[in-house]
Amino acid sequence: MSLLVTGSIGIDTVETPFGKRDDVLGGSAIYFSYAASFFTPVRLVGVVGEDAPASAFDVFKGRDVDTSGLEVRKGSKTFRWHGSFVKDMNEAVTVEVDLNVLAERAPAIPPRFVDSKYVFLANTHPALQQQMLASLSAPKLVVADTMNLWITTERPELAKLLKQIHGLVLNDGEARLLTEKKNLIDAGRAVLAMGPKFVVIKKGEHGSLLFTGDEVFTLPAYPTEKVVDPTGAGDSFAGGMMGYLSTQGSFSPPTIKRALAFGTVVATYTISDFSLGGLQSTSREAIDGRFAAFKNAMSF
Amino acid sequence: MSLLVTGSIGIDTVETPFGKRDDVLGGSAIYFSYAASFFTPVRLVGVVGEDAPASAFDVFKGRDVDTSGLEVRKGSKTFRWHGSFVKDMNEAVTVEVDLNVLAERAPAIPPRFVDSKYVFLANTHPALQQQMLASLSAPKLVVADTMNLWITTERPELAKLLKQIHGLVLNDGEARLLTEKKNLIDAGRAVLAMGPKFVVIKKGEHGSLLFTGDEVFTLPAYPTEKVVDPTGAGDSFAGGMMGYLSTQGSFSPPTIKRALAFGTVVATYTISDFSLGGLQSTSREAIDGRFAAFKNAMSF
Repeated sequence: MSLLVTGSIGIDTVETPFGKRDDVLGGSAIYFSYAASFFTPVRLVGVVGEDAPASAFDVFKGRDVDTSGLEVRKGSKTFRWHGSFVKDMNEAVTVEVDLNVLAERAPAIPPRFVDSKYVFLANTHPALQQQMLASLSAPKLVVADTMNLWITTERPELAKLLKQIHGLVLNDGEARLLTEKKNLIDAGRAVLAMGPKFVVIKKGEHGSLLFTGDEVFTLPAYPTEKVVDPTGAGDSFAGGMMGYLSTQGSFSPPTIKRALAFGTVVATYTISDFSLGGLQSTSREAIDGRFAAFKNAMSF
Repeated sequence: MSLLVTGSIGIDTVETPFGKRDDVLGGSAIYFSYAASFFTPVRLVGVVGEDAPASAFDVFKGRDVDTSGLEVRKGSKTFRWHGSFVKDMNEAVTVEVDLNVLAERAPAIPPRFVDSKYVFLANTHPALQQQMLASLSAPKLVVADTMNLWITTERPELAKLLKQIHGLVLNDGEARLLTEKKNLIDAGRAVLAMGPKFVVIKKGEHGSLLFTGDEVFTLPAYPTEKVVDPTGAGDSFAGGMMGYLSTQGSFSPPTIKRALAFGTVVATYTISDFSLGGLQSTSREAIDGRFAAFKNAMSF
């Protein structure tokens, strides 16, 4: 089924205890698209500046990612992020950020994408998220991400968005900020009360929580010693989750649970190398194998 | 089967965002014994001073905890701890601590306890742990706890202990300190290489990890919003784990996994109230019910 993602595309410089990479491809929509493409065809909508090298998107060659919704905007510059995980692999320190084209108008959703059934609105201004959602004809499952900035500065717009989506994915700090509740179980339930049918709280190396109806589902992280670069882990998690969901007919709690487990597994490949290297080194077979190992590692 | 625990018994003063309790019963051996007694008879060995109120151990009335190994030492004072969780429910700030009788010689293991098959050496000086272990005739399963202090100051004695025990339980910070490895999977494997057949790393509100042979098992925390006082959570976890293990004939990985899950569940009762209030309010039936809910909350 058609899975649409709109989100950031960036040129990253990343430092971790394992080294530094300059000017590598990054951004939420990029990680999401690659991760989701193990499961389903992906429609990518995003915008870069004219400084983006034409070869940047070669990573999607041979993959089922439709990049025709990619706008190369003349006179604009690509979003750039320079982050460091040298001190703490759990939290990036932003060394420098240039929003550039991300601070301008949102990219248009091409007419042939407006029938997309599965939609992931990666992190951006909640008014833009609503605008993009409004241009779709009949979405069946809409999931969004958000961040501290919008929770703090755009709460009314975010509140409106939350009433229009099926699922929200956010991290533990964002959930606490949004709900002003310290306990994550309280926080998850409070986000549910704001509108979404399900809420996923990502806890980084500590796994994730799913809230749906009265149910709380808890998932540990996949136990891995290979963490080279955490950039894109959350977006890959969302990509694996939405990719799997798009192949399913229903969104019952057991289906969403399996989707979270697939998201967790896909993210382990992302963090095992810099940029998209980890995702590029794996396959659907390897993912399925690790999914089985994950299930086994937590069954009792 | 007979489960022996040696550890601290204390009079605690505890502050949390939910209030303050002065002079309540605490200590690792106390929480452990109560938690384990839901599963199996417990033999408690510990020492208090003559200031301990005779009524302090009334909590064990009607429970299968043999307190005849409890020494009331004349001229000594009971261990006292004053801790605060007001700022952070995940980590106690020690306001005041008086080791008192804990700084003296260890309590003797009564002759009729020396045949104990299952043994938990709660946190104390590793030389004392070895001494107590040496006085047992034929232990079948020996598990120990330790802490930062001994890792830093008594590493050679701790190394000796690790070669004599089957299992070690420690928290994430202690595992990192002991192995000088940041990644917990690396750390767990490195502890295994020091001697024990299995290692449990407790991550507080983030669950636990089990290492045995080449296997890594991961368990999330039970998703609960009711956290009133975290004191004794780790000791209750160990008590539930060892209590369950003592009822099993084997210590295969699946058995240890189930034991960790029981430990996790029992600890949720401990943290739901001050001191032993949470454990006193529950029953084996309730624990089994929550165990089933926990299994369900993490199955996919």
